[in-house]
Amino acid sequence: MKVCRRETFNAAHRLFIEDWNEAKNLEVFGKCSYPNYHGHNYTLEVWVDGDIDPNTGFVVDLKTLKHIIREEVIERFDHKNLNLDCPEFDGLNPTAENIAVVIWKLLRNRIDESFKLEVQLTETENNKVFYSGEE
Amino acid sequence: MKVCRRETFNAAHRLFIEDWNEAKNLEVFGKCSYPNYHGHNYTLEVWVDGDIDPNTGFVVDLKTLKHIIREEVIERFDHKNLNLDCPEFDGLNPTAENIAVVIWKLLRNRIDESFKLEVQLTETENNKVFYSGEE
Amino acid sequence: MKVCRRETFNAAHRLFIEDWNEAKNLEVFGKCSYPNYHGHNYTLEVWVDGDIDPNTGFVVDLKTLKHIIREEVIERFDHKNLNLDCPEFDGLNPTAENIAVVIWKLLRNRIDESFKLEVQLTETENNKVFYSGEE
Amino acid sequence: MKVCRRETFNAAHRLFIEDWNEAKNLEVFGKCSYPNYHGHNYTLEVWVDGDIDPNTGFVVDLKTLKHIIREEVIERFDHKNLNLDCPEFDGLNPTAENIAVVIWKLLRNRIDESFKLEVQLTETENNKVFYSGEE
Amino acid sequence: MKVCRRETFNAAHRLFIEDWNEAKNLEVFGKCSYPNYHGHNYTLEVWVDGDIDPNTGFVVDLKTLKHIIREEVIERFDHKNLNLDCPEFDGLNPTAENIAVVIWKLLRNRIDESFKLEVQLTETENNKVFYSGEE
Amino acid sequence: MKVCRRETFNAAHRLFIEDWNEAKNLEVFGKCSYPNYHGHNYTLEVWVDGDIDPNTGFVVDLKTLKHIIREEVIERFDHKNLNLDCPEFDGLNPTAENIAVVIWKLLRNRIDESFKLEVQLTETENNKVFYSGEE
Repeated sequence: MKVCRRETFNAAHRLFIEDWNEAKNLEVFGKCSYPNYHGHNYTLEVWVDGDIDPNTGFVVDLKTLKHIIREEVIERFDHKNLNLDCPEFDGLNPTAENIAVVIWKLLRNRIDESFKLEVQLTETENNKVFYSGEE
Repeated sequence: MKVCRRETFNAAHRLFIEDWNEAKNLEVFGKCSYPNYHGHNYTLEVWVDGDIDPNTGFVVDLKTLKHIIREEVIERFDHKNLNLDCPEFDGLNPTAENIAVVIWKLLRNRIDESFKLEVQLTETENNKVFYSGEE
Repeated sequence: MKVCRRETFNAAHRLFIEDWNEAKNLEVFGKCSYPNYHGHNYTLEVWVDGDIDPNTGFVVDLKTLKHIIREEVIERFDHKNLNLDCPEFDGLNPTAENIAVVIWKLLRNRIDESFKLEVQLTETENNKVFYSGEE
Repeated sequence: MKVCRRETFNAAHRLFIEDWNEAKNLEVFGKCSYPNYHGHNYTLEVWVDGDIDPNTGFVVDLKTLKHIIREEVIERFDHKNLNLDCPEFDGLNPTAENIAVVIWKLLRNRIDESFKLEVQLTETENNKVFYSGEE
Repeated sequence: MKVCRRETFNAAHRLFIEDWNEAKNLEVFGKCSYPNYHGHNYTLEVWVDGDIDPNTGFVVDLKTLKHIIREEVIERFDHKNLNLDCPEFDGLNPTAENIAVVIWKLLRNRIDESFKLEVQLTETENNKVFYSGEE
Repeated sequence: MKVCRRETFNAAHRLFIEDWNEAKNLEVFGKCSYPNYHGHNYTLEVWVDGDIDPNTGFVVDLKTLKHIIREEVIERFDHKNLNLDCPEFDGLNPTAENIAVVIWKLLRNRIDESFKLEVQLTETENNKVFYSGEE
């Protein structure tokens, strides 16, 4: 049984590798590398996989999961510039893939080990990523 | 190859453990335990996993699946109070998780064993559960 | 210029006229009149129509509008039984139309007269109503 | 008869009045005023109101409208920082309301006078604005 | 007070003026004029505007409206080829605009004159039309 | 880590087995077998599963994936009649399942073998299929 809580946050970012010059960044990342940033409404789905507690009928209390997501992810990244404001992305290009890994690690510390954890991050209506920690 | 049919139903429920007093129910389930019930538009996705029939090009006929879902789930739960009207939830807290298990079992009886069955139940735009019967 | 804030709430209700017997209620309201209630995820859009404040660039601050909606509507109706818990529907059938009028009146008291007010209430993905107070 | 074309763009912005100090900006605009910008996936609906051409059956060719929107709006604002990159917002706070007015004026120049023009701009799933040019 | 019922149908069509040759049709209508048809999932919203009946709390019974839409629109156009199967489009190019006018007229005959009638027809996620009969 | 690109196309089709007579086709496929075709807005999600490139932070560049999907799928099927225009469906009933397999094979040729490939094809808001190539 898997349960899912959805939350959203809005952030600015640009895709940019410091070791590359502007021309190479533009070639690889296109308009996503424009110097003054752009932004997205990110939609995050957090899936927790485990057994149903026979007392409550919950896998996990989604109210609790909501609070954990808000503390670990929303307060950290909402209305922020991922490149400038968030040390999690020092030296790490804030692609949807990398944001998902960072979020997964932040949440993994807060979710009991007995549960499997997966995150899906939607960046635009056409682009999304899914990370299950199984590398 | 997996195929999916989506159906919806509207029902009232409250989360409530009979063995607990009101205060403990309120502490654990919050406003979901309010005594006079609240309700949801439930969205159900039923996934059936199997091989494509080389004659029809179908895994299963989704019209047939639609009728099975309507007979087993929609007629049973639509516009009902899950706590009061539905014996499936006697002594079983009607959390999204438990509703999904009940639905999965009802449908499992009607879908040929050669197919794997999964259900996803969306309770609100932020909360959903997925059950594949693999416990 | 019109601006819109969207909020959601979950409630139970039944359609039922006290002066009618069960048979007539069932004939007119169908399964919406079932005695033990059913429920919906209601989606409310509140539109405020006025001039842009040349200082802020806002018609109204949507954060303020969000708080007004939560105080007047969400705290009042969320996770409630509209028939049993809400005196606003004493003697008033809680159809989507009547809920929208009640909400419009509650909000009208809190929005400056210089603004026009409209509400849209979505009851299911197929049914919604829109009220602009122009009777 | 009204026809609508939907397009999307992603941009960074902050809400900020230059004549105010940081504290007042923060008080009025909250986290929308954070100094390093945040961003949104903006969804734009452009409505054109007029008679159906009896030859083509179109009010306007939506392919043509698509190209006008892309030239005037998407190329100008997509993957940009509205505060830093876009002279349209020099001295103009890039609220959804003001962005909608700017877009309406850009498109008004390109749509024949015989048609009425309206724009709806969605900033988040909860916030949107609608501008019809009738001030 | 306005109320809305949403229904869907799937149909094939092509945009094509018989008096024009293939080259001109292709120039004006692009790939929408390809000779062997393409198709859409059409989403229809029917809005009825009137006073609330003080007995029922309904403007109109949406169940009744649903049946009228299904009789007049869905049975007529669902899983049909609008050009080949539907005499309503003899000599009338089945653009979204013209389909909306045809639907409006079919429904106007069935809705009491005391109510205003509006239809919105969505052809793709980016293209839609709205017709209120006010020409 | 899986990444997803969404694209859409509009096509006409009918479900029909040449070796069967009209009566049997109608019995099995219902209105989906009507002779003059109907159509859908198909939504395609293409999922690519692999490791994150430590240089770019991408699994695959979604701009590149977009171009591959457009070349292999959209240009081939958009605004086409799958039965009449597309040799991929000669002797193959264009069910959602079979369309998904055809698309998967077309894309599999263009995506590096080191990546797993999955496609989800949505035919209507209620019907969709998912194919991972694991038969």
